Amino acid sequence: MALTYELIKKDKHTNARVGVIHTAHGDIPTPIFMPVGTLGTVKTMTPEDLEEIGAKIILGNTYHLYLKPGMDIMKKAGGLHKFMNWDKPILTDSGGFQVFSLSDNRKITEEGVTFRSHIDGSKHLFTPEKSISIQNDIHSDIMMSFDECVDARADYNYVENSMKRTLRWAKRGLDYHKENSHPDQSLFGIVQGGMFKDLREISARETTAMDFDGYSIGGLSVGETKEEMIDILNFTTPFLPENKPRYNMGVGTPDYLFESFQAGIDMADCVLPTRIARNGTALTSHGRLVVKNAGFKEDFTPLDHECDCYTCRNYSRAYIRHLMNVNEILGARLLTYHNLYFLLKLCENIRQAIMEDRFLEYKEEFYSKYGY
Amino acid sequence: MALTYELIKKDKHTNARVGVIHTAHGDIPTPIFMPVGTLGTVKTMTPEDLEEIGAKIILGNTYHLYLKPGMDIMKKAGGLHKFMNWDKPILTDSGGFQVFSLSDNRKITEEGVTFRSHIDGSKHLFTPEKSISIQNDIHSDIMMSFDECVDARADYNYVENSMKRTLRWAKRGLDYHKENSHPDQSLFGIVQGGMFKDLREISARETTAMDFDGYSIGGLSVGETKEEMIDILNFTTPFLPENKPRYNMGVGTPDYLFESFQAGIDMADCVLPTRIARNGTALTSHGRLVVKNAGFKEDFTPLDHECDCYTCRNYSRAYIRHLMNVNEILGARLLTYHNLYFLLKLCENIRQAIMEDRFLEYKEEFYSKYGY
Repeated sequence: MALTYELIKKDKHTNARVGVIHTAHGDIPTPIFMPVGTLGTVKTMTPEDLEEIGAKIILGNTYHLYLKPGMDIMKKAGGLHKFMNWDKPILTDSGGFQVFSLSDNRKITEEGVTFRSHIDGSKHLFTPEKSISIQNDIHSDIMMSFDECVDARADYNYVENSMKRTLRWAKRGLDYHKENSHPDQSLFGIVQGGMFKDLREISARETTAMDFDGYSIGGLSVGETKEEMIDILNFTTPFLPENKPRYNMGVGTPDYLFESFQAGIDMADCVLPTRIARNGTALTSHGRLVVKNAGFKEDFTPLDHECDCYTCRNYSRAYIRHLMNVNEILGARLLTYHNLYFLLKLCENIRQAIMEDRFLEYKEEFYSKYGY
Repeated sequence: MALTYELIKKDKHTNARVGVIHTAHGDIPTPIFMPVGTLGTVKTMTPEDLEEIGAKIILGNTYHLYLKPGMDIMKKAGGLHKFMNWDKPILTDSGGFQVFSLSDNRKITEEGVTFRSHIDGSKHLFTPEKSISIQNDIHSDIMMSFDECVDARADYNYVENSMKRTLRWAKRGLDYHKENSHPDQSLFGIVQGGMFKDLREISARETTAMDFDGYSIGGLSVGETKEEMIDILNFTTPFLPENKPRYNMGVGTPDYLFESFQAGIDMADCVLPTRIARNGTALTSHGRLVVKNAGFKEDFTPLDHECDCYTCRNYSRAYIRHLMNVNEILGARLLTYHNLYFLLKLCENIRQAIMEDRFLEYKEEFYSKYGY
């Protein structure tokens, strides 16, 4: 059975809301941050680590998994859940974002996108149908429609044409989905339209007119200012139906999460917390901490004094700084663990705040400490 | 209080023996393999992982820790146990082996060894006293005397002079130890003498005449054949007192462990299981498995069918091969976990076999499956 969304509580003062997404692989409390596991692993982490930090759903990347390990192996493994030993929900993107990022090595037609692999230069074609077919093989719980994510600075004509093609692709993907997906898989439509509100409105109205299981807002966090992001988000979200989950793609800093959830978004993802972890930076309740800096070499306090995660309960900044300084894998592992815990705990706190109608107070309190 | 060794059982048919080393940080059942944690971490593993796989004692490397994080930080951290959050026993080498490996960048005098750091070329002097002093700062449970480890092909005169200097250094280190070490730290003497039995005998007699808490056999696994190693080991070990632990340094393949334990050795260490793990190779009951090879890409069986470790219970060769193929840290982590578990389980099985006077049967059984 496809997912269902249960609305539990609306904030009295904002559009923020608490809910639960029910899936075949378990329930997802919302609003939620989703750790990214590009290649069938959230980098450095085991599934048990992910459960420990409170992850309820993770992402896989269709483009990357399609190239490696490839769908032959994925099918024989019985899908990504079994391949990577994760039995909670998995969401996959459509591959569109990665394919369009290969700017010099792809060609868009009505049929789809022809591109060359970043690994070996081999030629491939992704169509709306092919994208769903790959996501069928991955057997993700939540799939995305194949769309074009345009740059925030693209001109009106380009965005209009692209958005309309994305609508046609959405319909093709949905038709393919209805015929071919496993009954427990759900498909989201994606609203595009760049920075142009009239195009956003058309995209939102037409996408929601199709019967998707949830809706994503695409084309944000792609070069626009934070104010533009918030503006488009608050303009677009009200067009999305209340009885289905809403997903803002590619968002992972605390302020973008707050703003997204405040606008009524339920789900967000980003590689940021895991990527900056591997570069030696921690998210803390007092802002980012570049723990690999020499200034922390004799600091025997935890990464975040207010954090009760495994890393903060057991290791000092000095030790983690040492590990990063000598390129020890454990450093990346401890920081990844902490950063994901930090964001998932933040989501838990936000859910709690919404339940108590004090979302804005909590946001203000968090911002003043974090230094926004 | 320094360590004590308790002999529990001697094998009826070989010199193998089962015992327990009692230390301030806990008991170590012997014979035992000791994972190497060069820079204050057994690469990829947390202390909890190490406990899970049955590690009872780990190594730190004096030379590496002296350079990074350095002894200022080590002292302020309160020693390596606290710095890395490991509360079981730690053994440190003397730094001698690493310093002598810097063949073009070190100079030996009676006083000690002057060398240049492999990191920044800075000049340092290690003396027998300095080596103990660093190990005092690390606060390891078991320290090693500063010695020269000569190449297996060194000539008689060189080895004789070196061995005699090592004896003088042993005495100096022991004197320094008695005055300066923490009462819960123990110091081992190291028998040298290369491939020359008369020199091994002199070294063994004179080293054991000094009152060390245990004895290491150095200068093996440095270029000699396996037969030479076994020959020297069986010649030397009988000179070591029965009431103290015996340590064969730098040994970590299953056959070298069997041969060492058969000769009456209690402790061994090697980077091999962790290093080959990071290169994509597993130790299994049927020999080494280069799991990163393409041949395993559709093999959904565990690394080792007979292994019940976390990795083998949860992941396939195909998944681990994929992780190694795309340079995912989790691959190195899962393989490291398995390889160390494999060797520690092997030691447990060997202890059990000795208790039941069937060490040789177990050895033969293991060898026939492993393919030796």
